[in-house]
Amino acid sequence: MTHPVLEAIYERRSIREFTDAEVSPAYLREIIKAGIWAPSGLNNQPWRFVIITDQTKKQQLSETTHYDHIVLGAKALIAVYLDTDAMYDEVKDHQSAGSCIENMLLAVHALGLGAVWLGQILKKKDQVNSILELEAKYDLMAVLAIGHPVHRNQKSSRKEIDEFLLKTI
Amino acid sequence: MTHPVLEAIYERRSIREFTDAEVSPAYLREIIKAGIWAPSGLNNQPWRFVIITDQTKKQQLSETTHYDHIVLGAKALIAVYLDTDAMYDEVKDHQSAGSCIENMLLAVHALGLGAVWLGQILKKKDQVNSILELEAKYDLMAVLAIGHPVHRNQKSSRKEIDEFLLKTI
Repeated sequence: MTHPVLEAIYERRSIREFTDAEVSPAYLREIIKAGIWAPSGLNNQPWRFVIITDQTKKQQLSETTHYDHIVLGAKALIAVYLDTDAMYDEVKDHQSAGSCIENMLLAVHALGLGAVWLGQILKKKDQVNSILELEAKYDLMAVLAIGHPVHRNQKSSRKEIDEFLLKTI
Repeated sequence: MTHPVLEAIYERRSIREFTDAEVSPAYLREIIKAGIWAPSGLNNQPWRFVIITDQTKKQQLSETTHYDHIVLGAKALIAVYLDTDAMYDEVKDHQSAGSCIENMLLAVHALGLGAVWLGQILKKKDQVNSILELEAKYDLMAVLAIGHPVHRNQKSSRKEIDEFLLKTI
């Protein structure tokens, strides 16, 4: 079956190399708008965001992860948080963060940009909060590194559907 | 900005009332395919699925949630699981389940169907596993109730973007 939405889902790739072209602020807002249209339990909308384009902050953030070259090479970063005051159920709020991030990644793809979801940086989430001058009640979920892709030759693969489908009743 | 992917993200609604029309097995597989193209940490692909259309099983499942009328009214259910043997990080795997579910909901919308994400049923997840005859290593993440929408007049709302954007640096 073909449909632009299905195509985006199947063709989206993690993009780790970016050109020097800037990402427009309007696009960054559109990406966040896509994120907040994710579903959340009780519609609690627990997600929060920080947009980072400042060189010094990027440099500091790059020192909190193995993926320093991606953080430095990205033209913009969006840190995705949960506001723990807005949370109601840990598992469901984490799921909702995932839905939000997926919407953002699909929006990035739709806008002709590229991004990668950085999770390893969570090991230093306290340090990230400190660099971004955020209270401890904001719990880092991921950092998206965003820019214009150098190329779109990335390969990806999934196991066959039947390996995931436990049963049909 | 307009793009079919952004439109789907903004126009998707939770659909709770379904017509009597069946959902084709090919569509149910396509929805699962969309789910498995979600990103996962280390590409561990921890999601698993059960498709349920059997009336007796639906009746039994309806008794595990307040939303019994939705479960009974849906033409198909897809239970989304994590295989705990495949997990590597609780927070990231729960996020990944959320990404997977969001892809599925967007695919549902793209295919002209409707669905609602049922989470309250997790309170009885052991009973759900028992009804579906699944080992305890499968951890229920959500049940999607799927069918053809009676209408698409559902309203939804989000706070303003600036309420989510903590800062731009």
